[in-house]
Amino acid sequence: MAGKVEERRRALRENLIAHAERRIAADGLSSLRARDLAADAGCAVGAIYNVFGDLTDLVLAVNARTFDKLGATVSEALAAAPTDAVEQLVVMSQGYHRFAAENHNLWRAMFDVDRAEGESAPDWYLREMGRLMAYIAAPLSVIFPDLDESDLELMTRALFSSVHGIVLLALDEAASGVPTDEIDRMISLVLRQLTAAGDIS
Amino acid sequence: MAGKVEERRRALRENLIAHAERRIAADGLSSLRARDLAADAGCAVGAIYNVFGDLTDLVLAVNARTFDKLGATVSEALAAAPTDAVEQLVVMSQGYHRFAAENHNLWRAMFDVDRAEGESAPDWYLREMGRLMAYIAAPLSVIFPDLDESDLELMTRALFSSVHGIVLLALDEAASGVPTDEIDRMISLVLRQLTAAGDIS
Repeated sequence: MAGKVEERRRALRENLIAHAERRIAADGLSSLRARDLAADAGCAVGAIYNVFGDLTDLVLAVNARTFDKLGATVSEALAAAPTDAVEQLVVMSQGYHRFAAENHNLWRAMFDVDRAEGESAPDWYLREMGRLMAYIAAPLSVIFPDLDESDLELMTRALFSSVHGIVLLALDEAASGVPTDEIDRMISLVLRQLTAAGDIS
Repeated sequence: MAGKVEERRRALRENLIAHAERRIAADGLSSLRARDLAADAGCAVGAIYNVFGDLTDLVLAVNARTFDKLGATVSEALAAAPTDAVEQLVVMSQGYHRFAAENHNLWRAMFDVDRAEGESAPDWYLREMGRLMAYIAAPLSVIFPDLDESDLELMTRALFSSVHGIVLLALDEAASGVPTDEIDRMISLVLRQLTAAGDIS
């Protein structure tokens, strides 16, 4: 009996994640409502909270999938990239841009999820983020062989944040008005400039 | 009579903007509700929509004030800055960081306001954004005297977006985990690196 209950709970959990993912992708995180998800999954609203502590936990489960897909996109881009470290950064960043453009609402949800004041991100989130950062740190350590570990980490985060900011503002015409076909040019400009002084090739 | 009606309308408008500003600053844009504002202002919910087309218009009016304050902060930072163009960029960017940190929710609202799909930002928004960009373009044109107008504009937006991304992700511990006292170091690192290759000083 316990096994069956557990199985049903697991199936409901997967079902809810799939519906939440579809709704966030279609309408954005801010439109997500528990009662719509309950209707989608054919369960009571209360049943959602038997499986997830709150809606934020459900969104985090969706975000975990998005992170997986993002990791796959970046690693695919890397596999096809030239061996030059600067080119690897450019190719990864353009992969990041493509992923964000093609999965705009899911990508936004990764950064827009509400957390209670002072609550830090879950461990798996920091782990995934660390994995993403390692992709960037590897070519950077080739370009800047003399940076110590702490400066390399700072440079890695600064570079990721810069690319993220360019993609974010450019995809949101509101804030920037930049035609999206110029995003890759901006990324390439910033990355080549950022790495020029340290380039040892 | 018409004058009195107009006067009351203007007073309600100012009143609603002040209450919305206070609520966004305290609780963030996503918590803003028309019925709370109506209670604050002592009016019916419907009266809000006699003054503003919708809640988004009200938020845009709040954002216009935030833009004004941001402009004042950046121009103050500039007034106290050294004459060196790179230092001016660093000082302005650190002013931007300070403004974002001290007005976090209001600053977020400037970029998070919902617009209908395909609707572009209002003219005043693009004008204000243009004014902000001009502050950055001026020192950049000194650092890179050979850039043509279109490349200077691209570089200006890329640089603003980079600083914005660093500030955004670092202030949101969720996405980055960076201690905030390292933000200014990251900004300075990126700006000096971005401008190093073109520095003619």
